[in-house]
Amino acid sequence: MPTSSHINPNLRRHKKAVDIDPLFEQLKKGNISALSQAITLVESTAGEDIAFAKAILSKALPYSGKSFRLGITGVPGVGKSTFIEALGSSLIATGKKVAVLAIDPSSSISRGSILGDKTRMEELVKSDQAFIRPSPAGTTLGGVARKTREAIILCEAAGFDFIIIETVGVGQSETAVHSMTDFFLLLKLAGAGDDLQGIKKGIMEMADLIVINKADGENRTAAKHAQREFRNALHLLHPKNHGWSTKVITASGLKQEGITDVLEQIEAFQSHSNTDNSIEKQRNQQEIYWLHQTIEDRLKSEFYGRPEIEQRLNELEQQILLKKMTAFEAADRLLDRG
Amino acid sequence: MPTSSHINPNLRRHKKAVDIDPLFEQLKKGNISALSQAITLVESTAGEDIAFAKAILSKALPYSGKSFRLGITGVPGVGKSTFIEALGSSLIATGKKVAVLAIDPSSSISRGSILGDKTRMEELVKSDQAFIRPSPAGTTLGGVARKTREAIILCEAAGFDFIIIETVGVGQSETAVHSMTDFFLLLKLAGAGDDLQGIKKGIMEMADLIVINKADGENRTAAKHAQREFRNALHLLHPKNHGWSTKVITASGLKQEGITDVLEQIEAFQSHSNTDNSIEKQRNQQEIYWLHQTIEDRLKSEFYGRPEIEQRLNELEQQILLKKMTAFEAADRLLDRG
Repeated sequence: MPTSSHINPNLRRHKKAVDIDPLFEQLKKGNISALSQAITLVESTAGEDIAFAKAILSKALPYSGKSFRLGITGVPGVGKSTFIEALGSSLIATGKKVAVLAIDPSSSISRGSILGDKTRMEELVKSDQAFIRPSPAGTTLGGVARKTREAIILCEAAGFDFIIIETVGVGQSETAVHSMTDFFLLLKLAGAGDDLQGIKKGIMEMADLIVINKADGENRTAAKHAQREFRNALHLLHPKNHGWSTKVITASGLKQEGITDVLEQIEAFQSHSNTDNSIEKQRNQQEIYWLHQTIEDRLKSEFYGRPEIEQRLNELEQQILLKKMTAFEAADRLLDRG
Repeated sequence: MPTSSHINPNLRRHKKAVDIDPLFEQLKKGNISALSQAITLVESTAGEDIAFAKAILSKALPYSGKSFRLGITGVPGVGKSTFIEALGSSLIATGKKVAVLAIDPSSSISRGSILGDKTRMEELVKSDQAFIRPSPAGTTLGGVARKTREAIILCEAAGFDFIIIETVGVGQSETAVHSMTDFFLLLKLAGAGDDLQGIKKGIMEMADLIVINKADGENRTAAKHAQREFRNALHLLHPKNHGWSTKVITASGLKQEGITDVLEQIEAFQSHSNTDNSIEKQRNQQEIYWLHQTIEDRLKSEFYGRPEIEQRLNELEQQILLKKMTAFEAADRLLDRG
């Protein structure tokens, strides 16, 4: 861990050296531009930024952990931005500082679809109590998740009380968001359209709260019906850990209705967790999960990345599909040779 | 792959050498005792058996794949044995040969709870068209799953048309069974008792058929009610691949009621799959899944098994929980050092 306040500027030949100490002092005071600059450093893949990123994370880490981390997911069109705008504005009205981050490993394709259109969060964008950051670029979920987790640490050191992590649910990103948040909120729509889009295996069981969004105007009755259906379905699924029972409520991000109910659920969850310290326990489990996940991702990518393995693997897959050998024997051969 | 018919007997110093060719000839004729002996070889962890196990698997592999592989899961008390007895007997009555295997990685604890009490399958035990085999012993799910997959190959080479793989659903065993079968049947009970026991994340979405068992006598009304509830819940979950739509039916293993409906569902699934060859495609995906799963299990166990890693990992976990470093940095340190 670096103890010197100033990283050797020779490490950075082409860019201006970063002065970590003053940057961190500004960040700790809640300076948005310092926070933004620190996240950019952490997101950078440039070799000369890595030492700076490590240094600022080391400084931020002891100040992290004091926020409430809220995961929000839902299919495209469910109204995430509008909902987050309404929820975030309510939180700010009670004096909270709210950061909104996003996870979207497919951002090369859908870039702009998630938090891209900041005009949808007009209130939040204008408020100096809010910080909004689109998904970092990246090709692997592991890489994007790491950068987001590191951004959480920086936001917490900058004094944000609520960190909202948004995902559109591409691939395994809901699992990643669930594994870095205290509370997981699933947004749904009433009506067959959304039922058919469905949600991936096990997502409903992950939810700490299900909100049927767009429950306004003519949609209100359908939303109430969907609420009953989801309640019945939840009843058949496995209950969450720690004795918390997942509720289904209706809301309208657009009309700012039901937002108080969401906040009440979050408060109830926090009180519930205080009785047995379950948020702290869950965070510790999450840390260990990310440690192992990162180790295993790297073991895999290093193994599969070897050119001779890649070619041999293709050959073995063919052998298996032609019933020349079992998958187990093929694995043994690849490993005993590799 | 061995081509000689007789493995060098010097490999086996303490036991009688196995004559693979005649053993396999008997197995291929459907001789139960030869099949049993071959599975015992495959299950053996004795070094001298490994070459024999490989040899017999190589011989069996080209004759495998012609059965229908049926996974069955449900919590203890749901009536699995009685249900399988009724289903198996019906299949035998139509001239099919039925093998029943089990997966239970916790067998050291619950040994006897799964397929142990064979008297529950009186009809199947008596029939020479049936073969029943309890879960192989093992400490890891990977090991038990591998032995079960290999037993499937041997049963298929011995001419069994239906392979039923049963699991009580300990740990991740449902996922393992789902990944080695064509059709996944979830047994449930009506009533709050079973709701409270619940099922693990994503299991309901894996099911190709949900059967509310013990739908007899006074239980019939409750079973019909549960059927409706599960239908509604399924409606909200993600539909299965390949356009198959999961049904919920009621049955009684004890009274042998509803078994015809189960068989009809299986036939409908088979016809459906024939239109797009989806069983074959799914099996190919499963093979590649097991190849990668086995590789990754071994990469992990070899890495974590190193004594210096184990100790260093404990130290790093403490550092993380004390916020001295992030999980990502700890992973980097462990790997760059290891």
